[in-house]
Amino acid sequence: MTIAVALLGDVGGTNTRLGVLLPHGMPGQISTFRNADFASFEQLLLHYLSAQDVQSCAAVILAIAAPINGDIIGLTNCAWQIDTNSVCSAAKTKNVRFINDLEALALCLDRLPANAVTHIAGPHIPTDALGRKLVIGVGTGFNAACAMRSGSVVVLPAECGHMTLPVETAEGLHLRDHLAKSRGRASVERALSGQGLTEVYQWVAASRGLVPKDLTAAQITHHAIQNADPCCMDAAIVVLRILATVCGDLALAYLPHGGVYLAGSVARALAPLLAASGFAAELTRKGRQTGLLQSFSVHLITKDAAALIGCATLACPHPEMTMELSR
Amino acid sequence: MTIAVALLGDVGGTNTRLGVLLPHGMPGQISTFRNADFASFEQLLLHYLSAQDVQSCAAVILAIAAPINGDIIGLTNCAWQIDTNSVCSAAKTKNVRFINDLEALALCLDRLPANAVTHIAGPHIPTDALGRKLVIGVGTGFNAACAMRSGSVVVLPAECGHMTLPVETAEGLHLRDHLAKSRGRASVERALSGQGLTEVYQWVAASRGLVPKDLTAAQITHHAIQNADPCCMDAAIVVLRILATVCGDLALAYLPHGGVYLAGSVARALAPLLAASGFAAELTRKGRQTGLLQSFSVHLITKDAAALIGCATLACPHPEMTMELSR
Repeated sequence: MTIAVALLGDVGGTNTRLGVLLPHGMPGQISTFRNADFASFEQLLLHYLSAQDVQSCAAVILAIAAPINGDIIGLTNCAWQIDTNSVCSAAKTKNVRFINDLEALALCLDRLPANAVTHIAGPHIPTDALGRKLVIGVGTGFNAACAMRSGSVVVLPAECGHMTLPVETAEGLHLRDHLAKSRGRASVERALSGQGLTEVYQWVAASRGLVPKDLTAAQITHHAIQNADPCCMDAAIVVLRILATVCGDLALAYLPHGGVYLAGSVARALAPLLAASGFAAELTRKGRQTGLLQSFSVHLITKDAAALIGCATLACPHPEMTMELSR
Repeated sequence: MTIAVALLGDVGGTNTRLGVLLPHGMPGQISTFRNADFASFEQLLLHYLSAQDVQSCAAVILAIAAPINGDIIGLTNCAWQIDTNSVCSAAKTKNVRFINDLEALALCLDRLPANAVTHIAGPHIPTDALGRKLVIGVGTGFNAACAMRSGSVVVLPAECGHMTLPVETAEGLHLRDHLAKSRGRASVERALSGQGLTEVYQWVAASRGLVPKDLTAAQITHHAIQNADPCCMDAAIVVLRILATVCGDLALAYLPHGGVYLAGSVARALAPLLAASGFAAELTRKGRQTGLLQSFSVHLITKDAAALIGCATLACPHPEMTMELSR
């Protein structure tokens, strides 16, 4: 390929997804890489560009699982640092932009195809509704972002994964103390993440006097969905109930009349258990404001590539302009 | 007075403040009324208009401690309903606007005189800084709102008082269970409000095997500040530490680089004990994000009339236009 392309990326705590912006303003075929297979993001980027035979990029737009502040971004849940200068030189471009991964998800909603979301709870409010929207991501880490219209779409970044883990019962406090051990405190992310699911599983097993098996989050999820292991099932249910409490709390903070959208690998993987966990009832259990909570629609974003669509909206706010950008 | 004036109001759960918009775009002298002295808001309004000899209003702009949704607003912590039609007919105007009281506070910040705020913690970021600002109100109830610039100022409304009360210790869970008794759950507002301070005091006394005295929130605050009663002091400290935890959590949700502003009668009354409570250290105790939290400035809004200044910004976005509006 000899023409310069706009490259879109989503750098998570575990995986990185890369794709090229197509003329109609959406990402093309997406390649997914495990971060652990590369020493640095630049190495991964060079590998991808070489495999795709891309000599230079018109622009690189990266959604990153980290607070975006300055030219060197340290990932929250991965040892990588992503440096504007190194990305510019690897991609032979002067045009590099970083955005928080949840902000990218918040930006993608208006362009999400209808088959990229599944309705979970509340009224059916379509993805192109005008009201404020809240995206909540559960993957390697946890975070949220709010998208609102004020002329164009404005996104409010956040670091919600570090908010205090909610506790309402003696059992919840026991779990909180387990997750806080040697850390001083337990944030939301300590339960609502892949690592969180693993630690919740270990706590469930130990609470029953069992020796926890050496299971990954993916294995725990698989056993839970197959109903093959009671500790895995209970861990999944505990995580989903905490997720429901946190989603309800965040809905009170952002009043997302345009809808709540769950995203991220852990949310997608656990989705088959949402109904069994009593997710919708727990999300709306907010005393005098229960009716308000019941008025919000809740969807799951089922497409792994959604954050790249958000990056595409930055590369190309109006799809008809794409041809100029991608040349 | 024969010319029509623009009337500004702040209807809280306990008190209502009314004032007239002056030509320079700020409220004039403010009259404060106890809601309990009037059967309805309309009765209070008629009383005020008659006392001020105002025949009709060009506009009425009311900040109300309630979610604003439709023409009839039910106050969250008061039995009143405020009805657009009744206000129109009482004030002889067709121009009535309701806004959530915390939204009004979020709107006032750019016009707050420097002597209307006291610095509490973090760097000194001035009130006219451009970054996102978070206002947190503790009075009859609890709530927050975020002000951001996107061209003009946009305010994000919220219902944060109904979020889950944070619990991190066995003692905290014991308090949570006390506050949740006969309610099913304990929200933030159950501790962070005037009534909350009273209930926390009763819990502190009972936890020590003492019979709680019949004290109002104002009396508890007074005894605490005078160091005249250990239970009152401890109740105030418990409330301020919970407030710090919640302020830190909300700062993670809104990333207010333009500053955090505390407001409301309970926050103002307890302010002399902020340092003794370890407020700043507790607010920033967020694990890996402690440095981020330490970068936010925290101020207290000391003027009771601040919400009316927010209403004034709606009546008169540009002060030079005021004369037209108030005629």
